[in-house]
Amino acid sequence: MSPPVRWSDVRRTGDALVRIRVDLSYDGSGFHGFAENRDVETVGGRLRAALERVLRHPVELTCAGRTDAGVHARGQVVSFDTTVEPEPERWRDSLNGLLGPRIVVRDVRVADPDFDARFSARSRTYRYTVLNRPVPDPFLAATAWWVPEPLDLTALAEACPPLLGEHDFSSFCRRPRGRSEVSLVRRVLAAGWRELPSEDGPGLLGFEISSSSFCHQMVRSVVGLLVDVGRGRRTPADVAAAIAARDRSRVAQLAPPHGLVLWEVGY
Amino acid sequence: MSPPVRWSDVRRTGDALVRIRVDLSYDGSGFHGFAENRDVETVGGRLRAALERVLRHPVELTCAGRTDAGVHARGQVVSFDTTVEPEPERWRDSLNGLLGPRIVVRDVRVADPDFDARFSARSRTYRYTVLNRPVPDPFLAATAWWVPEPLDLTALAEACPPLLGEHDFSSFCRRPRGRSEVSLVRRVLAAGWRELPSEDGPGLLGFEISSSSFCHQMVRSVVGLLVDVGRGRRTPADVAAAIAARDRSRVAQLAPPHGLVLWEVGY
Repeated sequence: MSPPVRWSDVRRTGDALVRIRVDLSYDGSGFHGFAENRDVETVGGRLRAALERVLRHPVELTCAGRTDAGVHARGQVVSFDTTVEPEPERWRDSLNGLLGPRIVVRDVRVADPDFDARFSARSRTYRYTVLNRPVPDPFLAATAWWVPEPLDLTALAEACPPLLGEHDFSSFCRRPRGRSEVSLVRRVLAAGWRELPSEDGPGLLGFEISSSSFCHQMVRSVVGLLVDVGRGRRTPADVAAAIAARDRSRVAQLAPPHGLVLWEVGY
Repeated sequence: MSPPVRWSDVRRTGDALVRIRVDLSYDGSGFHGFAENRDVETVGGRLRAALERVLRHPVELTCAGRTDAGVHARGQVVSFDTTVEPEPERWRDSLNGLLGPRIVVRDVRVADPDFDARFSARSRTYRYTVLNRPVPDPFLAATAWWVPEPLDLTALAEACPPLLGEHDFSSFCRRPRGRSEVSLVRRVLAAGWRELPSEDGPGLLGFEISSSSFCHQMVRSVVGLLVDVGRGRRTPADVAAAIAARDRSRVAQLAPPHGLVLWEVGY
């Protein structure tokens, strides 16, 4: 994979820039997350390399949600600038030919010049899938956390309302190293569990949570605690207590990454 | 992996035999089919090795449908004999611990002594999944054939009735080498397409076909022809003509294995 070339290094003065928005889905298994990292395979690295092959100029990507290693996306959004005359459908199909089956470009479109995949986003929605049946399912092995102990759905539901609204989520977030001043206050817009459609009957549970933004590992920390509530190891009241504590040691279990999907970004 | 040891080599005279039925699902990606083959990884080889670790005696498996390389199963059934006192739930959980996420034992039970996973089966149902949307889906890459050209659903439906009933399926079957006398007459009990439930709207199509038994590559050959009908390259009338021709060269395209699932076996 080629090292990133800065767009500013090569752009000729006077080139007209067009802002492009790309919507993509990916199976994050086997990728070390979205954000580029020189030594490992990342979704962003693969996408940038494919875009540079199609556009024949360096590309700088901005993304709506920097998913962690093993985390998937159904509705990731990225933006970048190009000097090339846009051909959205052809670019989409060329990219899909280059990217292979695990990363899929769903849509390419010309965006408003002010559009920024990260800063224009008003909300992000994540879905976490739990397979709550006595036996696992080979077709969900890469996308659902298998929890064989029967979960108490009433307790799961009661554990969600305390998450809503503006809170300091320090108990649920991995604080960026050396940045103790960073705010971990977030406004959760919606949070709830539901049965997902399945041809094998009940037990496929989806937790969906929307927020203006999320701090690092927040969804997986929340799900870890909620599943402990569902198992009866904690109570719904422990959720409010964990938020109030602002203490990461209060939320022991991080749900595994493979159940998590960046579901949708709202602009 | 240990080479197969014949049960008859080790059984002591007088051991009481219990017939066991195992229902299993597997993601066939990366397996060279069900049937054991010394040099490659097969589902049957993995399952037999796991059973022998749990039971501590050699096992000879009989299976309902010998799926090909890359083909999946939701409802594969196998049977075998044991002298060990049956503990179905413990065996199920031990096997799942040994087999890993791609092969899952759904159920273990004591069967009637006459039960034979292969010869007691009255019907087999296969499902073939086609993703008929302009862009692929990374989460279906391993289990659906992506066909971007819009398929004519009316033509697909009209192409199914000619398959029903008893026919010589020589046009659709790979004849076992050197066995020109083998009958390829099969009785198809049901065949049809339907939209499968999907959170992303229409375009996820399932073809389901039931028969007392299938000959080799029959379902993938049928789907290859039907999808050509859906694309408008062939007509529904070509299906009856292909059956009547009893000529394998009349059915050019074999649908890829990864869309096929042994869905259910009826006893």
